[in-house]
Amino acid sequence: MTRLENDTFIRALLRQPVDYTPVWMMRQAGRYLPEYNQTRARAGDFLALCKNPALATEVTLQPLDRFPLDAAILFSDILTIPDAMGLGLYFSTGEGPRFERPLREEREILSLIVPDPDTHLRYVMDAVTEIRKALNNRVPLIGFSGSPFTLACYMVEGASSSDYRQIKTMLYTRPDLLHHILDVTAQAVITYLNAQIEAGAQTVMIFDSWGGALSHAAYQEFSLRYMNQILEGLKREHNGERIPNILFTKGGGLWLESIMASGCDAIGLDWTIDIGEARRRTQDKVALQGNLDPAVLFSSPEAIAAEVGKILASYGHGHGHVFNLGHGISQFTPPENAKALVEAVHTQSVRYHQVG
Amino acid sequence: MTRLENDTFIRALLRQPVDYTPVWMMRQAGRYLPEYNQTRARAGDFLALCKNPALATEVTLQPLDRFPLDAAILFSDILTIPDAMGLGLYFSTGEGPRFERPLREEREILSLIVPDPDTHLRYVMDAVTEIRKALNNRVPLIGFSGSPFTLACYMVEGASSSDYRQIKTMLYTRPDLLHHILDVTAQAVITYLNAQIEAGAQTVMIFDSWGGALSHAAYQEFSLRYMNQILEGLKREHNGERIPNILFTKGGGLWLESIMASGCDAIGLDWTIDIGEARRRTQDKVALQGNLDPAVLFSSPEAIAAEVGKILASYGHGHGHVFNLGHGISQFTPPENAKALVEAVHTQSVRYHQVG
Repeated sequence: MTRLENDTFIRALLRQPVDYTPVWMMRQAGRYLPEYNQTRARAGDFLALCKNPALATEVTLQPLDRFPLDAAILFSDILTIPDAMGLGLYFSTGEGPRFERPLREEREILSLIVPDPDTHLRYVMDAVTEIRKALNNRVPLIGFSGSPFTLACYMVEGASSSDYRQIKTMLYTRPDLLHHILDVTAQAVITYLNAQIEAGAQTVMIFDSWGGALSHAAYQEFSLRYMNQILEGLKREHNGERIPNILFTKGGGLWLESIMASGCDAIGLDWTIDIGEARRRTQDKVALQGNLDPAVLFSSPEAIAAEVGKILASYGHGHGHVFNLGHGISQFTPPENAKALVEAVHTQSVRYHQVG
Repeated sequence: MTRLENDTFIRALLRQPVDYTPVWMMRQAGRYLPEYNQTRARAGDFLALCKNPALATEVTLQPLDRFPLDAAILFSDILTIPDAMGLGLYFSTGEGPRFERPLREEREILSLIVPDPDTHLRYVMDAVTEIRKALNNRVPLIGFSGSPFTLACYMVEGASSSDYRQIKTMLYTRPDLLHHILDVTAQAVITYLNAQIEAGAQTVMIFDSWGGALSHAAYQEFSLRYMNQILEGLKREHNGERIPNILFTKGGGLWLESIMASGCDAIGLDWTIDIGEARRRTQDKVALQGNLDPAVLFSSPEAIAAEVGKILASYGHGHGHVFNLGHGISQFTPPENAKALVEAVHTQSVRYHQVG
């Protein structure tokens, strides 16, 4: 059994008392950091970086060496699972991820197979192991996966999409096929996240980046349902330690009550919802993670401190809050503004955790 | 005083009894119609089409000749106001609208002027007059404008944006400058919409396409506040007839209560909110317009009828509902599916309006 030097993040997710509000930033190891860009250049490209455990470890730790963040997150891509399923992930310059073989044909859909995490996704587990070693228990390590619906969007569209035409056409004309994709993908996510936990991930987060593009009814049936399936299959403990989980549906503010009903430990919030209102609606039954607009980091340390103050005040006194951005940090963020964010959260949050 | 042959749409917006739920489709005069593409080709390009009242009239009426829609909407662009302010609107192929001179410099911002609708926007008023003549009171005509925040997004970014970096940087570093842009733009929208009403628009709609990109607090301060200002200056009657208004913030489902507090007649809803839930939250104090996912129109008449049925059932018995899509109809929509939508609404909605 290992003891974390700083377990504030884990305690906040479990709604236990903490001395201050922990903070990390989605995509904290990323292009806004010059040292990241250097490592990435050495790797060759983004995908090569993801698939190289030593370099993935290096970039995972870079933001921690700059800022006193309360958690590290595995450096990887959300599309590792469909890549391991054989769809042929690649990144075309300036256009984001693409698949060589998008899923369209019934025959291909019905022959989808859950990839074995120990072979095709071995590089992810190796990265988790190596990062844990390098972290040496400074802070906890977050593992993650895309949600089944978000993965299916990329798998069916073949790339990111502005109108989700292919997958929504399938959803409304052949829901049986989409359910099949989602079911196999949910099984794959369970296997994948449990392997990450066994390799050393101390929290797991599910990124449902695109569930917010669905209607309220379709969200329940095609996104949340499969995140529920994952939670049922997910390890909640490992080596006697609780492994908290976080569900994050971008644009999911209207659906908090049903997300909470999944039994998750924490809900990630984007910046469109008032976090105090979210706390009232979820009645302190889950932890909340969020929810600064990443665009605030384009401003100044003073403006950042003011916006951080509003979120802390809106959440109010008591535990169960992990500070984060409402979406990934932008590549155009000045690193000193990320530093100002972390400092503002740590400094200003202390008074909300004092007893009496 | 003229009498509309079909005033179902106006009555529904005013929450008066109707025999069935009226329906129209955002962007109903558009690229999914082959006859629209022909007229547009004759005009030369999209902007030339907007600026030619005779051709704008032609395309406005095209969908009404195909489908028994309950309202017509002025064919125009939301960016006419910034164009009239001198920013130099143009459309680059495949990239959407752009401005030659985006607003960045304080000096330029402080010299913004409310354009005179009778000169620089004369072509819009001429189109309204000509469309009213051509409609000959078949159905009411909707006039519209972009919201101040949405217009400001384009004006400051210079084009559509995925991260709103320029305008949000201004919002968090120089809110005074953004407030100035929004105030002048709100005045321009008031003048513009009132001129449309005098020219014959029988309802006005404000499209806040990008307000949903803001945080809850910034939405109140930078988007809704200026829509409130517009409502205060907007004519509510003309020639003894009520002129209802509709506010539509895409992604605004979390903020219905504050939108309703503006005193608007109706709120437009995208598809992420359950319309029955929206009705409970707004307590029948405003009409609701929406809210089918336009992607449903990629499916089949049967699937469309089923999804229409779910929305009508969720809204339930009683008046105050205008059926619409939750966003503009896609260019990839088969016209026969748009027809199926209109038929399904008209047929299935009758029973929700029967008394006793």
